[in-house]
Amino acid sequence: MKIVVDGMGGDNAPKSNVEGVVNAIKEYDIDIIITGDKDILEKEFKNYEFDNSKLEIVHTTEVIENEDKPVKAIRAKKDSSMVVALNLVKEGKADAIVSAGSTGALLAGGTFIVGRIKGINRPCLCPALPNVERKMTLIADGGANADCKVRNLVEFAAMTNIYSKKVLGIENPRISLANIGSEEGKGNELVKQAYEELKNMDINFIGNLEARDVINNKADVIVCDGFTGNILLKSVEGVAMSVMSLLKETFLSSTKGKIGAMLLKNDLKEIKSFMDYSEYGGAPLLGVNGGVIKAHGSSNGKAIKNAINQGIKFAKGNVLKDIENFVKESKDNLEEK
Amino acid sequence: MKIVVDGMGGDNAPKSNVEGVVNAIKEYDIDIIITGDKDILEKEFKNYEFDNSKLEIVHTTEVIENEDKPVKAIRAKKDSSMVVALNLVKEGKADAIVSAGSTGALLAGGTFIVGRIKGINRPCLCPALPNVERKMTLIADGGANADCKVRNLVEFAAMTNIYSKKVLGIENPRISLANIGSEEGKGNELVKQAYEELKNMDINFIGNLEARDVINNKADVIVCDGFTGNILLKSVEGVAMSVMSLLKETFLSSTKGKIGAMLLKNDLKEIKSFMDYSEYGGAPLLGVNGGVIKAHGSSNGKAIKNAINQGIKFAKGNVLKDIENFVKESKDNLEEK
Repeated sequence: MKIVVDGMGGDNAPKSNVEGVVNAIKEYDIDIIITGDKDILEKEFKNYEFDNSKLEIVHTTEVIENEDKPVKAIRAKKDSSMVVALNLVKEGKADAIVSAGSTGALLAGGTFIVGRIKGINRPCLCPALPNVERKMTLIADGGANADCKVRNLVEFAAMTNIYSKKVLGIENPRISLANIGSEEGKGNELVKQAYEELKNMDINFIGNLEARDVINNKADVIVCDGFTGNILLKSVEGVAMSVMSLLKETFLSSTKGKIGAMLLKNDLKEIKSFMDYSEYGGAPLLGVNGGVIKAHGSSNGKAIKNAINQGIKFAKGNVLKDIENFVKESKDNLEEK
Repeated sequence: MKIVVDGMGGDNAPKSNVEGVVNAIKEYDIDIIITGDKDILEKEFKNYEFDNSKLEIVHTTEVIENEDKPVKAIRAKKDSSMVVALNLVKEGKADAIVSAGSTGALLAGGTFIVGRIKGINRPCLCPALPNVERKMTLIADGGANADCKVRNLVEFAAMTNIYSKKVLGIENPRISLANIGSEEGKGNELVKQAYEELKNMDINFIGNLEARDVINNKADVIVCDGFTGNILLKSVEGVAMSVMSLLKETFLSSTKGKIGAMLLKNDLKEIKSFMDYSEYGGAPLLGVNGGVIKAHGSSNGKAIKNAINQGIKFAKGNVLKDIENFVKESKDNLEEK
């Protein structure tokens, strides 16, 4: 088994990418390919001692930037660290790619280069939202598909169910549907119809989840269209950040506040850490013909290492085969939806 | 001008409703009708000294509960405090209704009893979201219409623009569109098309607003379908609550934390107060033939008084006439959308 890491993708590339690769080789005894500028990468790897027979550097000359138009970049920058890495997955030379580069480009590349699993209508990106019990909740879809049909939501539910079992080790994942009320029959046309499908699937469907419970660990997966998913993710992120800075600002505005804040320093840090993405690895793109793990743009070495571990579990768990089986079993049922 | 208050609606009815009415009469020198059980209300009013020539109690025998099915309740409970109050608005005996009762019933009653303004396709409920700068941002629609067409979003934008000017006193309201990216061209089909319309309207359209900025006072109004609006509202509420209880829990788990929290007590209270709905009054239902103000279910006297003030400004500001004018001017343009 082999994992390929996009060596030049991410805000802290290639430093964090290299650190993550080295630690993954040490910890998981895994073969890794890294793509990127050979000179720069080699220089970076010289800072570490590790079994470099486990490492292969594939030289590339281009980098896809966040500002690049995703589809265009994938087509134009054929020798970019991301495109070359995606091709290695496509050709079966790697089982999974980890990239902290442009989300849009990775979505486009995952879909167009690695390719959809036959029978899956739309792949979905599944970022994890940390919750107050320090577990995580997958959002499916987190923004890959702004407009969804019922069959997409059914596919998202099936694929995240498999992923949660095989990669996250959750025995009986609680799959929920993002909605504006908890009772059956609530919501817009899409979720009303999706509810009917989900409740008849061979999954642990726990019904509607209201947005007020989104970080309360009531579900392992929240199924929704990508527009809603992205709204959910960003509002949680935004509000948590805003409340934390409001706290800081208020505390620092008085002497009493400053003393209090000093006493609470560690507690406040711990609270902030519950939003720490690096603990949770990356977001899988499910529904394509290989493991595609999107690590956070500001990933540090630990986050990259954790994302590599997700890629390993993805391959070991035969997630692709399970998704293909789901497609086979539900083919007749899905095509009309 | 007269305002009618649903005397029996809300978690703290009729106590808070009566308190709010008395203080509104004192502060705004306004005539108020209150609906509800006459004996109970009269007993409650005896606790206050005020000019009771300004007050009329209309006796009703029924109450719509939160558990009642909205449309059914509106039809069946004809002598409920809410339905009688809505009929007073319909008949022109009151200019606006304030109710802290069932949101669903008030939406249904507003639409079916008071009736839509001719030419408005769908009324929208516009709750205010407090933001970190202690101002508020209207969400339109906040949950009345789970499925929306482009023309609905156009109407929401026009109506909240008028309301913000006339009732909230904002000179040039910043109208935004909830979206998953800030650039033009982002989002699902609905918002992409709505963007094209909004940018050509005679409003201060500031473009897309990402959910991460939802409480950062970047806009006075966030236009969206009711499904998205409700998701936004509830996730903000949920995350703010969860972070606050996480804080409390963490602080109380150590002696140092307890001392720190004691020192920060007032600061923490102030932070919590930024989520205090009572400062902001109620949510208007815009697009119906009269002022309909939904006060928060747990309204205290102050919140009711503030909601009454919104009703007064709604009537004084001729909001209805302005909306009718918008309909006249845009009629040909809207019907196809």
